[in-house]
Amino acid sequence: MPELRKDPIIGRWVIIATERGKRPSDFVSERKESGDRFCALCPGNETKTPPEVYALRPEGSPPNTPGWRLRVVTNKFPALIAEERLEQTSVGVFEWMSGVGDHEVVIETPRHNTRFFDLDVEAVADVIWAYRERIHALKQDARFRFVMVFKNHGAAAGASLEHAHSQVVALPIVPKRVFEEMEGARKYYAEHHQCIFCDIIKQEIAAEVRIIEERDGVVAVTPFASRFPFETWIIPQGHSPSFEEMEGYHGLAQVLRGVLRRMDRVLNDPPFNLVIHTSPFGESAHPYYHWHLEIMPRVTKVAGFEWGTGFYINPTPPEEAAQYLREASPSSG
Amino acid sequence: MPELRKDPIIGRWVIIATERGKRPSDFVSERKESGDRFCALCPGNETKTPPEVYALRPEGSPPNTPGWRLRVVTNKFPALIAEERLEQTSVGVFEWMSGVGDHEVVIETPRHNTRFFDLDVEAVADVIWAYRERIHALKQDARFRFVMVFKNHGAAAGASLEHAHSQVVALPIVPKRVFEEMEGARKYYAEHHQCIFCDIIKQEIAAEVRIIEERDGVVAVTPFASRFPFETWIIPQGHSPSFEEMEGYHGLAQVLRGVLRRMDRVLNDPPFNLVIHTSPFGESAHPYYHWHLEIMPRVTKVAGFEWGTGFYINPTPPEEAAQYLREASPSSG
Repeated sequence: MPELRKDPIIGRWVIIATERGKRPSDFVSERKESGDRFCALCPGNETKTPPEVYALRPEGSPPNTPGWRLRVVTNKFPALIAEERLEQTSVGVFEWMSGVGDHEVVIETPRHNTRFFDLDVEAVADVIWAYRERIHALKQDARFRFVMVFKNHGAAAGASLEHAHSQVVALPIVPKRVFEEMEGARKYYAEHHQCIFCDIIKQEIAAEVRIIEERDGVVAVTPFASRFPFETWIIPQGHSPSFEEMEGYHGLAQVLRGVLRRMDRVLNDPPFNLVIHTSPFGESAHPYYHWHLEIMPRVTKVAGFEWGTGFYINPTPPEEAAQYLREASPSSG
Repeated sequence: MPELRKDPIIGRWVIIATERGKRPSDFVSERKESGDRFCALCPGNETKTPPEVYALRPEGSPPNTPGWRLRVVTNKFPALIAEERLEQTSVGVFEWMSGVGDHEVVIETPRHNTRFFDLDVEAVADVIWAYRERIHALKQDARFRFVMVFKNHGAAAGASLEHAHSQVVALPIVPKRVFEEMEGARKYYAEHHQCIFCDIIKQEIAAEVRIIEERDGVVAVTPFASRFPFETWIIPQGHSPSFEEMEGYHGLAQVLRGVLRRMDRVLNDPPFNLVIHTSPFGESAHPYYHWHLEIMPRVTKVAGFEWGTGFYINPTPPEEAAQYLREASPSSG
């Protein structure tokens, strides 16, 4: 059973995923190329994944059969498990809890060789809609406090499967990074009576130097203190604490797809991580938090300095990155 | 000139290293293998590096000539620059300061193809001594508040040069991660009147499951909430807030070299990052902080989940990792 363990010094939680139980030889062989060509996410292989929990398929088409255009299944090797009681223990300075949670895979397209941003806008909007549906469903489970939606594209970004997919993880705790963001935003609100994200958007739109695109109430911007070259945030212009409460995903789909296509043009299909930052459950009505999406191209290596300090060295000023991305075409290459 | 920028939401600082000014094409070509075989760190090429600031060389041997067994030079492409006035500015929600700091390279051996842990114990102790000397020297500069010493081994860990080297970076601010550790330790001390690191060591030695080695007052342990498979911390057993105040580096050199050799045996020369965590300047006498060294083998990819949450998934329980490392021989392979 997986375990959640808390670092006694800085309070960072870690999942010790015992179910995956990796031995040293697993890591050594992972560094070699895999020759395996079977894909469990492809149509026809529906029985090779756990049963689907959500799908977009023609009316009358039975679950776990071909014909779908999007499918969500439980992860076959989950980092956390839904069928556990939430138990917390401590011994001396150490604290841990049972690895309760949920880990799902969103299969974004039936086509094996199609990248997420090669899909048409409607299919991208479908993926975003699936995230929303899964968050609403997982919110019903009282054990969960937060849902993290993310996508790894490319092996260097940690994608272990080629077939376009993203992941949804429900957690029994609010992760440290999310908590810090909530705290920072809460303090700013206490002082200024404004949402800090709303203020950032206003300032960025006025300055014009880091804006990539502004369209249908959605803004794409390279953040002022970008950690990584070409890091991009996509933020709804109107104040909106929770991703899953947003109405109308078409503008978001257009901007997201456009930004990823611009990155593809400028950086030649870079590996990237995409993460949705949204309010923890039960905190959806906050006037100070504002959901957004962060895209981090993995074109530099994160090394000792960054790991040791939580302090990043970024060799590309975000103003230059924004200019490259702004000038690149978001239409199909 | 490089800039230090502060994330307005969570207060994380980032170095925007304008001196390196990377364009998109630089990242694309970096993903290919470099064919360049010239090494500026090798003996005979002393004029190809900035002048040395410290060296171990025979009596009478002039600086910046061959004959040295260890050499410290300013980084040719520094992330921060020592010749700047520290200036702080803000515009609206954004805050930044001039990129004042120091960035040095410790050339650990004259031999190009020798890995750090292939050196004999005396040479490893020399490297540790050089760290100490450089920290003491940089402490004299009133603009600096913290020195980060780290080593990247292997391309996947971010090492851009093959020749064995480590890096020393002096910073005008205390990085967020270090600040969090100090804060966590301070809170624990306020409640328990004990150093949390001392308590962890006691509990680990009694439990015996995560200890790799205990020798000459130095302990090597896989931390309870390890973020990464085979993550290892090396901690002095006696309470010691500052790395540079420690007396006698021979035991540390033995344990460090031994742990890296064990990792080499178990994981077949894994890429790794090594970072020294020590007290900020002017805080050396703290009863609650305890310097230590963290080694993070890079055998898994850090992906969207980790970046989004600051929450790690570790597929190898630290108890198993400790057992593998304990059973491996620390002597030369």
